[in-house]
Amino acid sequence: MTEEKFKPARRVAGQRQDVWSIINEAAAATPKQPVETNCDDIAFIGTELTVYIGYNPPQFVLDAAKQALDRVECNQYSPTKGRPRLKKAIADAYSPFFGRELNPETEVTITTGANEGMLSAFMAFIEPGDEVIIFEPFFDQYLSNIEMPGGVIRYVPMSPPKDGAERTSSAANWTIDWDVLESSFNEKTKMIVINTPHNPVGKVFSKEELQRIGDLCLKHNVLILSDEVYDRLYYVPFTRIATLSEELAKQTMVVGSGGKCFAATGWRVGWLCGPPELIKYVSAAHTRICYSSVSPLQESVAIGFEQADKVGYWDHSVKEMQGKIKRFCEVFDELGIPYSDPEGGYFVLANFAKVKVPDDYQFPDHVVNRPRDFKMAWFMIMELGIAAIPPTEFYTDQNTHIAEDWIRFAVCKNDDVLEDAKDRLRGLKTYMT
Amino acid sequence: MTEEKFKPARRVAGQRQDVWSIINEAAAATPKQPVETNCDDIAFIGTELTVYIGYNPPQFVLDAAKQALDRVECNQYSPTKGRPRLKKAIADAYSPFFGRELNPETEVTITTGANEGMLSAFMAFIEPGDEVIIFEPFFDQYLSNIEMPGGVIRYVPMSPPKDGAERTSSAANWTIDWDVLESSFNEKTKMIVINTPHNPVGKVFSKEELQRIGDLCLKHNVLILSDEVYDRLYYVPFTRIATLSEELAKQTMVVGSGGKCFAATGWRVGWLCGPPELIKYVSAAHTRICYSSVSPLQESVAIGFEQADKVGYWDHSVKEMQGKIKRFCEVFDELGIPYSDPEGGYFVLANFAKVKVPDDYQFPDHVVNRPRDFKMAWFMIMELGIAAIPPTEFYTDQNTHIAEDWIRFAVCKNDDVLEDAKDRLRGLKTYMT
Ligand SMILES: Cc1ncc(COP(=O)(O)O)c(C=O)c1O
Ligand SMILES: Cc1ncc(COP(=O)(O)O)c(C=O)c1O
Repeated sequence: MTEEKFKPARRVAGQRQDVWSIINEAAAATPKQPVETNCDDIAFIGTELTVYIGYNPPQFVLDAAKQALDRVECNQYSPTKGRPRLKKAIADAYSPFFGRELNPETEVTITTGANEGMLSAFMAFIEPGDEVIIFEPFFDQYLSNIEMPGGVIRYVPMSPPKDGAERTSSAANWTIDWDVLESSFNEKTKMIVINTPHNPVGKVFSKEELQRIGDLCLKHNVLILSDEVYDRLYYVPFTRIATLSEELAKQTMVVGSGGKCFAATGWRVGWLCGPPELIKYVSAAHTRICYSSVSPLQESVAIGFEQADKVGYWDHSVKEMQGKIKRFCEVFDELGIPYSDPEGGYFVLANFAKVKVPDDYQFPDHVVNRPRDFKMAWFMIMELGIAAIPPTEFYTDQNTHIAEDWIRFAVCKNDDVLEDAKDRLRGLKTYMT
Repeated sequence: MTEEKFKPARRVAGQRQDVWSIINEAAAATPKQPVETNCDDIAFIGTELTVYIGYNPPQFVLDAAKQALDRVECNQYSPTKGRPRLKKAIADAYSPFFGRELNPETEVTITTGANEGMLSAFMAFIEPGDEVIIFEPFFDQYLSNIEMPGGVIRYVPMSPPKDGAERTSSAANWTIDWDVLESSFNEKTKMIVINTPHNPVGKVFSKEELQRIGDLCLKHNVLILSDEVYDRLYYVPFTRIATLSEELAKQTMVVGSGGKCFAATGWRVGWLCGPPELIKYVSAAHTRICYSSVSPLQESVAIGFEQADKVGYWDHSVKEMQGKIKRFCEVFDELGIPYSDPEGGYFVLANFAKVKVPDDYQFPDHVVNRPRDFKMAWFMIMELGIAAIPPTEFYTDQNTHIAEDWIRFAVCKNDDVLEDAKDRLRGLKTYMT
């Protein structure tokens, strides 16, 4: 490699090809019938069951966005901490869950998606060398977001149920390695990230699990960043760690996403809630990163929160997503492919141990050395025209063995797309042992 | 001060009260008739001539935004580097200026406003200890954006014309201290930031000035980040540094802003253009910061660029803004207050040396120790009900003497607001020496 004239910073230099570009590239190369994807400017040929939501936000929120566009103050800079109306709508919507009144001015701050919100939290509290604990599988943006301020990541693996290759069971059966977790805390530990409902596992952490994590954080004086972006999609009782005790509330920042709440991932409206002493620094970091967030869509998310209960939107979303999960997973039942039945969110992990790619199948160089799930994902795109995500991308190299038999599917798609996907998946029959 | 339980990172801890909160606080406290401001959730009582644009984006762009909201793919995640349509629209719009065809896939990348775009450029190239040269007065976000990746700032002051207190002349007469500039380059210098048309000076850098800066950058192998967010508002010939030579183009990244182009500062759509070897790292940094940028408003900015020439929008914007500058500055001519006549943008710097605040005037503690322009700004809010910005906020402490007689006004307001401001400013007569 020739020396570059203008050397990039280490934080952006040299990276292995990521899962999204591999999947997109495969999708671009596959010979099945053409459909537009949105992951990149390529014509994907098949059914795309990756992160992209396949339908529009609800009409009442779209209407609110259009009306906001007619108002001068909704088109110009918003206050850096967010529009007062949105902060109030969030405080009002979340106070009942937290069992106390959130102060919209000091305990809520608006960010450019949950993503930049989490970056702001890391930027607010992490000094170079500080440690942050995250669970595997992780949401991949955590890594770069923690590393940007110089944080050091401690990984704690979660594992599927032992009989995951034989039978379907609840996503609850994915478990934390508690020994690794306990030994990960030390005097450098500044923060832990939890994610419930969990992407990609579909697990909703139980009250007992959260209590045990919380106790460790209290003992070691560690901040909790609770990524609850799927908090409106749960199918079992959902506990929020910040509600377990006043002490825990004092050291927890909760992350939410307008994109996830209202099926509008491209709107980039997120927020953090937590105690004023923490939130004020998150706001300060956010101001330095993005200055302020998108105004008209903050307004429409505010109106979304104001009206959602009245129009029964949350209940409707849950029922609809449960219907999609049921509809889609039928094909796995039919094929005898076990899966983890989601307790929340819109991702399904299925166990493909029984699916066998022909021994002489030709993979390109950048896939051939990747774990089994990458090969499986490539194979499915090429042979079935179905794009899904290999979950080992969300594990460290030494832990890929834990998840390499699994594949992640996103069911946040129109029903006809799900039916098409099922048809395609039936093509797996020929490859099952 | 008690030790905080969860110490914030240095990058967000401890900050002097910034100009925006001082102005807002003053605005909240003033006794004049009530108007809503948008700087914060306070009722400002008077005429606000700070950064906030006082009117809507053009109708054809608003219509495009509303139509985008009806399309699923415009509401969900866009590719991290930006929507293909927007990248192409920008490449098409800017290729003629750059005298070469920009490749939309490799030479344009979309960011969450110019602001996060500049942060992405710093994150892409600055390692701790690398130096970045910026001019004073500076756009205040540069500071935290450079410091976030650990960059060290070298300041080079610009000074008003010697006779700035006596007579009005072109903003061109603000000049760079070339000796300081030349001696600021050393082996640690990684980047220089230039801003033309300039906020707050209103200067458009001449070809000769840009050539001289460019030669220094070539000699020292230094990257150029050219903040050209006001590039559609110039009233004298406008030279872009990247067009001066092929060598300069190779080390220049140009920053643009949909918010500034289309009077939609709250939309948070920006971009960087430059050579592929540089842009690819900016994209990588942006992906790690915000993941992707707001989809429906990327689409409408794309449509804005596609149609702007056809509907004569750019010419219209220039004429309209020139009219506003002329209309507003009449009051200074009338009062005998000299100002710098803007060559571009929508800011006017006026020299208030002749305006005298009564000796016994009472300032609050956080204003009394600030430079003369802060006191003047406070006084104007309180006594005239007019909010403007003290420009020493954009200088380092040791250089505040350069600008403490000046006040910045933003004329991007409806004409009735400008007339109201003029009426209020006539109240200065009693305080003039
Ligand atoms: C677990 C998790 N956290 C955060 C995010 C980011 O959310 P946003 O789109 O609001 O930035 C996602 C998006 O997929 C996610 O799955
Ligand atoms: C010189 C300059 N650069 C950049 C920006 C930020 O632009 P954006 O709103 O697109 O982030 C501004 C906004 O005032 C500015 O004046």
